[in-house]
Amino acid sequence: MRAFTIESEKSDFQYLRLANEIESKILGGEYAAGDRLPSLRKLHKQLNLSISTVYQAYIELEKRGFTEARIKSGFYVKPLLRNVLPSPKFEKQKDAIPKKVSINPVASAIVEAMSDPKILQLGAAAPAPELLPLKQLARTVKSVSLKNLESIMATYEHPAGNIELRRQIAKRTLGFSEKIAPDEILTTNGCIEAVNLCLRAVAKSGDTIAVESPTYHGFLQLIEDLGMYALELPTDVTTGIDLNYLEEALNRNTVKACLFNPNFHNPLGYNMPEENKEKLAALLNRKEIPVIEDDLCGDLYFGEKRPATLKSFDKKGLILYCSSFSKTLAPGLRIGWALPGKYLTAVKRLKLNTSVASSRLNQCVIAEFLKSGAHDRHLRKMRNALKNQMSNMSLAIARHFPQGTKITSPNGGLLLWLQLDETVDSLKLYQEARKHSISILPGIVCSTSDKYKNCIRVSCGYPWNERLEKGIVTLGRIVAECRGIYA
Amino acid sequence: MRAFTIESEKSDFQYLRLANEIESKILGGEYAAGDRLPSLRKLHKQLNLSISTVYQAYIELEKRGFTEARIKSGFYVKPLLRNVLPSPKFEKQKDAIPKKVSINPVASAIVEAMSDPKILQLGAAAPAPELLPLKQLARTVKSVSLKNLESIMATYEHPAGNIELRRQIAKRTLGFSEKIAPDEILTTNGCIEAVNLCLRAVAKSGDTIAVESPTYHGFLQLIEDLGMYALELPTDVTTGIDLNYLEEALNRNTVKACLFNPNFHNPLGYNMPEENKEKLAALLNRKEIPVIEDDLCGDLYFGEKRPATLKSFDKKGLILYCSSFSKTLAPGLRIGWALPGKYLTAVKRLKLNTSVASSRLNQCVIAEFLKSGAHDRHLRKMRNALKNQMSNMSLAIARHFPQGTKITSPNGGLLLWLQLDETVDSLKLYQEARKHSISILPGIVCSTSDKYKNCIRVSCGYPWNERLEKGIVTLGRIVAECRGIYA
Repeated sequence: MRAFTIESEKSDFQYLRLANEIESKILGGEYAAGDRLPSLRKLHKQLNLSISTVYQAYIELEKRGFTEARIKSGFYVKPLLRNVLPSPKFEKQKDAIPKKVSINPVASAIVEAMSDPKILQLGAAAPAPELLPLKQLARTVKSVSLKNLESIMATYEHPAGNIELRRQIAKRTLGFSEKIAPDEILTTNGCIEAVNLCLRAVAKSGDTIAVESPTYHGFLQLIEDLGMYALELPTDVTTGIDLNYLEEALNRNTVKACLFNPNFHNPLGYNMPEENKEKLAALLNRKEIPVIEDDLCGDLYFGEKRPATLKSFDKKGLILYCSSFSKTLAPGLRIGWALPGKYLTAVKRLKLNTSVASSRLNQCVIAEFLKSGAHDRHLRKMRNALKNQMSNMSLAIARHFPQGTKITSPNGGLLLWLQLDETVDSLKLYQEARKHSISILPGIVCSTSDKYKNCIRVSCGYPWNERLEKGIVTLGRIVAECRGIYA
Repeated sequence: MRAFTIESEKSDFQYLRLANEIESKILGGEYAAGDRLPSLRKLHKQLNLSISTVYQAYIELEKRGFTEARIKSGFYVKPLLRNVLPSPKFEKQKDAIPKKVSINPVASAIVEAMSDPKILQLGAAAPAPELLPLKQLARTVKSVSLKNLESIMATYEHPAGNIELRRQIAKRTLGFSEKIAPDEILTTNGCIEAVNLCLRAVAKSGDTIAVESPTYHGFLQLIEDLGMYALELPTDVTTGIDLNYLEEALNRNTVKACLFNPNFHNPLGYNMPEENKEKLAALLNRKEIPVIEDDLCGDLYFGEKRPATLKSFDKKGLILYCSSFSKTLAPGLRIGWALPGKYLTAVKRLKLNTSVASSRLNQCVIAEFLKSGAHDRHLRKMRNALKNQMSNMSLAIARHFPQGTKITSPNGGLLLWLQLDETVDSLKLYQEARKHSISILPGIVCSTSDKYKNCIRVSCGYPWNERLEKGIVTLGRIVAECRGIYA
């Protein structure tokens, strides 16, 4: 069963096809953890491929986190991520009701501490600088002529955003729906400003917003700031919100809008199945309820193709799509965007009243980079790196955390969600970890309830190294110590 | 009485002292419009100053808008701005009540059209690019090393803002109160984001905010967006809000916060007298009512010294000071700041939740420029230019507008406020002017009432030229045509 069937036709991507085939054999269980892959020479003869093509495929698999090279011995299969630890499981809640949110004091303190470079940052959902194309971006800044720089700074940018950047974004979002025109796009100061403006365009103080449970703490903070109520929907760790439950909840409650993150959900990491997205969009279109879709990590998929967006199933312009370049290009540039559908005018007006326009300089730099064509190449590399980092992090957690730890196995993004022994109080754990200069995100800030009291979110944004390994060893020890004592 | 008393001591600034002395003679009425100033040779002998020093003083006066050179004839005194046309006058309103605001549809359309370069922009309160130090700023961008650019873009900036920029701002605000530390400052995406965050920190949907009447339309738009109510206070064209009226209004109404613009008020242009500021701060401190102070144009004074801020009289940390670099350095960079007093934590949290942080690149560029020491030199030049532009604009309006036109005579900033014949509907006037590719701001968007229906705001951001002169001729003709017909 281990025979390879690669056709011997000439192609630059032979190595990729070979890597894909071996990957599916590993995923299918034909190769187990610890198995040695065939030697380069053997596959070279068997498949009539050059030694260098086979070698490239093996390097690709290593980048993807499936194999490791051992000196003078060959390539070995690493333990599979998805089989390492069981998935988190939560009891289904009954009859969720809209709740006032008050997580800001805790969440703000945690988020503010995230910028301290002395702390091992397992809490912040940010990619490591070495994963970003900063050299090219810096060169792009340098290449702008003095004269252009002057005119870039001289006047306010158009409130809807730099037209060249909107053209580039429109090009890249061709697959979303039949046609996205630059005029349908609005650029913002990062994804969170996009979400903020969209939320304010569709709901006001006192209104109820349906969210996934758990959800991104930033969403709850926004809802709190805007005096709105959160209705938390039961959410499966691998498929997302329960559609039947949602329909019932919409009948029971007056929900003004939904705020969802269907692709590589923060914090759960799942990618909602395409048929669920289609049903979800249809249901909310039918009920005329606007949905704000956060697709911040949609480009960071580990599989074969980019997951579909909820927006692509929108027939009525009721889905307000939000994303940004903060996770894929440069957090420091603060550029995101929205496709607000039929709420475009309202969102544009709010943008104008809130910050006039986003910085033209930063928008021009990103537009130039996108035009250069380097973005897809960069994203391919980044996805491989993240996949590998997440695999290493999962394995380290499996090695060093107490028995009973449950963990998600996302197919994209950069976040892991851990369910610890139910006696662990993650806020105490957070405080203990901080004493050891380690930051994590306690589950308590991802909900209005204390349902995720024993959960934490861990970021895999950084390439694996000794410091990270040591950090996970320490964290595992603290988790063990926290068991029971705060129960 | 026309003798000059300059002492003959050596100084680089002799020319400035001479210019100041002549200026006060003009202001005091010793020289009238049309008078010829003494010849260079005469003053050179009389004051024992070099010819070039006297010449410099005359050029300085020309820059300030007091004189004009006539070829082969000498320097002549121009008509004095403040005597050109009478000041606008409004009936005092009685018992103002909080009102819901709904100016957004009109105001947004007007503001959005302001970015069209084909239109003569008399509506937008923006300085001409040639008044800004864009060359130095562009060179500052260019001078950042590749390595620094990389690290600037790699991570989120601190939510409170770039520390070097906050240090520079703290240095420049030494005179505000006893000590401003960088930690008390928060940088934002322009002044309007600062005002927005401060307003949200002190009030919520349904609350009443006291504002000047007329006020900056952007404030009303914010109040509308946030579901708040506006209480418009009677405001004198030269001294600002009526303090007795304010005290009564505060007794009659539950005012949650005030939103004032005491220096070079938008749109009235007045600079509130220092004793009024002191009384105002004391009154609101006593009543424990927070005040958001917009000081956007405080650096653009035409007189001898920068006007005091309301903040400098704040004893309780209840004044939330807001400003920006958009009017003085570069609108395109979108960097402003706030000194939120005792609301610092709340404002910081809102900033984090709204846009994480402002762009580090743009903040670094401004910090470098401020460090270079070029800012004060630049501001001196810019103030002279604006004073001259405003003088030219006022004179042109006096020449070309129908009799009965009233006009403000601001001592700083870049805005004029015109009260036209009471039969003129400024919104119709706006529409007629747009047909001739001229943009103005109709007074209707500066109030929840139609009290300023026959007023318009005109910006003096651009150096005087033939296109502007022609535009004013056209506008004057349209004003004349609009009289009566819409009554």
